[in-house]
Amino acid sequence: MNHDHAPKENPNTESSADDLPEPNAPEALSPDEAEEESYQLDDAVIHDIVEALDQGKYLAVEEKVLALSPADIATLLEKVDNETTLHLIDLLRGTLPAEAFAYLASDTARIIFKKLNPREIGEVIADLDTDDAINLLEEFEPDYRKEILRHVSRRIRILVEEGLTYPEDSAGRMMHRSFVAVPEFWTVGKALDYMRGLGDDLPEQTYDVFIVDPRHKVVGQVHLVELMRADRRSKIAGIARENFHTVPLEMDQEEVTFLFRKERLISAPVVDEHELLLGVITIDDIIDVVHEEAGEDILRLANVGEETTTRSVLSTVRNRFPWLVLNMFTAMLAASVIGLFEGTLERLVVLVTFMPIVAGMGGNAGTQALTVTVRALAMREISSANVMRRVGREGLIGLCNGVSLALLVGLLAWLWSGNPLIGVTIGVAMIVNLILAGLMGVTIPILLDKINLDPALGSSIFLTMLTDANGYAVFLGVATLILL
Amino acid sequence: MNHDHAPKENPNTESSADDLPEPNAPEALSPDEAEEESYQLDDAVIHDIVEALDQGKYLAVEEKVLALSPADIATLLEKVDNETTLHLIDLLRGTLPAEAFAYLASDTARIIFKKLNPREIGEVIADLDTDDAINLLEEFEPDYRKEILRHVSRRIRILVEEGLTYPEDSAGRMMHRSFVAVPEFWTVGKALDYMRGLGDDLPEQTYDVFIVDPRHKVVGQVHLVELMRADRRSKIAGIARENFHTVPLEMDQEEVTFLFRKERLISAPVVDEHELLLGVITIDDIIDVVHEEAGEDILRLANVGEETTTRSVLSTVRNRFPWLVLNMFTAMLAASVIGLFEGTLERLVVLVTFMPIVAGMGGNAGTQALTVTVRALAMREISSANVMRRVGREGLIGLCNGVSLALLVGLLAWLWSGNPLIGVTIGVAMIVNLILAGLMGVTIPILLDKINLDPALGSSIFLTMLTDANGYAVFLGVATLILL
Repeated sequence: MNHDHAPKENPNTESSADDLPEPNAPEALSPDEAEEESYQLDDAVIHDIVEALDQGKYLAVEEKVLALSPADIATLLEKVDNETTLHLIDLLRGTLPAEAFAYLASDTARIIFKKLNPREIGEVIADLDTDDAINLLEEFEPDYRKEILRHVSRRIRILVEEGLTYPEDSAGRMMHRSFVAVPEFWTVGKALDYMRGLGDDLPEQTYDVFIVDPRHKVVGQVHLVELMRADRRSKIAGIARENFHTVPLEMDQEEVTFLFRKERLISAPVVDEHELLLGVITIDDIIDVVHEEAGEDILRLANVGEETTTRSVLSTVRNRFPWLVLNMFTAMLAASVIGLFEGTLERLVVLVTFMPIVAGMGGNAGTQALTVTVRALAMREISSANVMRRVGREGLIGLCNGVSLALLVGLLAWLWSGNPLIGVTIGVAMIVNLILAGLMGVTIPILLDKINLDPALGSSIFLTMLTDANGYAVFLGVATLILL
Repeated sequence: MNHDHAPKENPNTESSADDLPEPNAPEALSPDEAEEESYQLDDAVIHDIVEALDQGKYLAVEEKVLALSPADIATLLEKVDNETTLHLIDLLRGTLPAEAFAYLASDTARIIFKKLNPREIGEVIADLDTDDAINLLEEFEPDYRKEILRHVSRRIRILVEEGLTYPEDSAGRMMHRSFVAVPEFWTVGKALDYMRGLGDDLPEQTYDVFIVDPRHKVVGQVHLVELMRADRRSKIAGIARENFHTVPLEMDQEEVTFLFRKERLISAPVVDEHELLLGVITIDDIIDVVHEEAGEDILRLANVGEETTTRSVLSTVRNRFPWLVLNMFTAMLAASVIGLFEGTLERLVVLVTFMPIVAGMGGNAGTQALTVTVRALAMREISSANVMRRVGREGLIGLCNGVSLALLVGLLAWLWSGNPLIGVTIGVAMIVNLILAGLMGVTIPILLDKINLDPALGSSIFLTMLTDANGYAVFLGVATLILL
C-alpha cells in the first residue's frame, strides 16, 4: 500500500469500509466521550487512586499510577492536593519515570523536590533531556544545584552547568544539545549511512540535519524528508533549505517563537556570536513557550503577574496585594475629583446614581481598546507606519460608540430621573469619556512598550484611573453648568 | 564530522574558534540588531516599498517585494493601509507566491480576494496545501467558492470540498491529506525504499509513518528517526511508538492542541468513526491554534470577541457596541442600589467620594480571581476533585487582601475625612466586598463552563455588576447604620 491509496486519491475510502464489522470501533460513544476515553486521565481514575491511597492499599496505588503515561502522572500529581502529592511521592519514590517530572508545573516540582534528597533528584536529572533538566534545576538555589549535580555524570553536569549560564528565557536555555551535524562536502548517501550508523545515538528529536563548515559554523540545514528523497550521490550542500535561520544564543524566547511561527520552522540551529553551532531548538519547545507567553499576557492584564494553583494562599496574597494597593491609590486619586463637586452633589443627590455609570462605561470601552492593542503588540502588528492610524481609529470608534450610547443612556436617564437635562448631561459625559477611553486604551500600552516596559502590566489600572476621573469630572462639571 | 564533535562533548568549541577571522560574523551588531537583521521585515523596508509605490516606480516595487519571503510579503500586506494593500495586489497579481496568501490574517485575505477574480484565486488555491486552501476558502460564500473551485483540478476540488464538510475548528478542517501509510507486514527496509521511491511525492511535512491494516485502519505510528535507525530487516510493526493517539475527525481544535501538548506529539493520525486513516495533523498546525485560542481568551475577557486590525471602524464598533450596551444595563442595575440610600447621601455627601473606591477595588480583586480561573479552565487544571478547594481558596485570599486593604484604606479615609467612623465604614465594606469578589471571580467562569458557555465571555461584566452593587450596598448600608 502506498499513499496513493490513501484518501488523498480516494476520498470515499471510509464508505467502502462501512459494511465491514468493526469489533472495537467506539461507535456507541459520542465524539465527546470517545475523546475523553482516548487520552484523558479522568476524575474517576484520580478518585480511585486517592481512595486506594487513603485506605492504605499501596500496591494497588503503585500499580494504577505506574500504568499511566508520564504526562498523566504529572497531571495526577498536580490535580490532587499537596498533601496527597507528597504522600504519593513518598510511596513511589524511585519508581516514577523521570519523564513525568519534566511535565510538572514548576510549583508542583518545587513541592515534590523538597521531599526528595539530592541523590534522588540527580537520578531524575540524569534521565532527562538537557533542556528539561535545566528547566527543573532552575528552581533550586545554586548551592543545592551543585549538591544535586554531584550525583550525575560529568558529561551531563557540564552540559547542564553550561546551559544555566545563559540568561533565563533565552535560546541558550531552550536548546537541546544533541543534534546531527555533517560537513558540507558529504554526499546525501554518506549522511544517511552516518545517521543510520548512529543507531540509538541518533537524537529522537531530529527533524533537520545541519551542515557545518570545518570550523563548525552552520552553513545550511536539510529537512529529514528532503534528505530521504534526494539522490544519494548528490552533495548535501546542494539540497540545503532556502528557509534557513540561525538563532543567536541570547535571543529571548519570545523572539524565538515569533521567528518559528512567522517562518513556519520545525527546528533551528542555535549559534554563538561566531555562528558556530551549539544546539538546536525544536518546535515542541516552542509550543510550551507560546502557551506560557499567552498566559502571561492574560494574567498581567488582570494585574495578577505569574500565578499558579499550587501556590500557597499567602504567596498568592503577596502576589496580588501590591496591585490592589496601587489600584487603591489610583481610585482615591480619581475619587478626589468628586470632592470638587460636593456643592453640586449636595444640591442634586440624584446625580450620584448616574455618576458611576459614566465612569464604568469609560473603563469598559477603554479596556476593549487596551486589550486589542496589547494583543496587537504581542503579534507585532504595530509599526511606526501604522501607529497614528491606530490611535485615530480608536478615537473614532470611541466617538461612534459614545454617540450611540449617549442617545441610549441619555434617554434612559431622562425617563428614570424625569429630568431631560440629566439625560443631556450624562450623554455629553459619555461621549467625551468614550473618546478619551479609546485614545488612552491604545496609547498607554504603546507608550509602555516604547520605553521597554511590559504593555500589559499595570496598564489597566492607569486606564481606569483616567476614565474614572474624567467620567466624574465631565459629568459633574456639565451638571454644574447646566443643572444648577 | 559527527555529533560527537558537537559541543555536546566539548562545550568549549567556541573559545577555540575565537581567534579565527570571521569575515561575515555580525560581531559589530548588538544581539538585538542582529536579530532584526536576520529575519525581521523592518519598518524601513516597508517605508521604501510604499515610497516607491507612491512615486510610480513599479519595477522597483516588484523587485523589492518579490525578494521577500512569503511570510514577509504577508506581513507587508498587513502592515500597510488597505488602500496600499490593494494597490500592491493590483501591481503584483499573478506574480506573488501562493504561499504568501497562506500567511495572511483572514481579514486581509478577504480584502485582497475581493480584488481578484475567481480564476486568480483558483490558481492560488491550487498551489497551496489542502489545509491552507480550506482555510482561505472558508472566507467565501458557498456559491463563490464553487465558482473558484471550477478553476482547480478535480483532485484538489474533491479534497477541498470534502474538507469543508467537516465542522469549523474540527480536526477534519485542520488535517493535511498527504501522508505516508504502509502495511503492517512490511519491513523497515521496504518502507524506507518505498519512501525514497516517492521522490517529490513524499510529503514535506512527514514526521511519522503510519501503519495500517488491510482495511486502512491505523494500527501504529513510527517516528521517521526511529525508522532511520532501525534494522532494515525488522518488521515495521515491531518498532511502532508506544505514544500513539488517534484523533477523531470531529474533535475540536482546542482538544487537539491539548492532546498534542499533553502527550508531546509531533504528528497524529486523523481517523473516522471506524478508525480508518483520513489525514494527519502536524505540530506546526497546532502552534497557530494555540496562538489563536490564547488570543481569543484575552479578547473575550475584555469583551471584545474576535477582532483584527484590518476590520473597518464600523465593523469594530458593531463588534464592541453590544458589550457596552450590556455593560450599561448592568451598570444601571448596580447604580440603582445607590438610589436606595439617597437619604443617607443627602445627609453625608462626603460618602460619595469613598463609595466608588470600595466598588472599584472589588472589581479589581474579582478580575484577578476571574482571570486566574479562566486561565486554569483553559489549561484543564480544574476538576471536580479540586473545585471546592479553589473556591475556598479565593474566598480566603479575598479575606486576607480585604483585611489588609481595610486597615490601609480605613486609615487613609479617616485622615482624609477627619471622621474615624468613615474609616470603619469603608473598612468593613472593603472586607465584605473583597470576599464576595474572590468567590464570584472563581464561581462565575466555572458555572459558565459547566453549562458549556465560554467562561471568558461576558463574565467580567457580571462580576463587575455584583462587586459594584455589593460595594455600594454594604458601604452605604453600614454608613446608614453607624454614621446617622
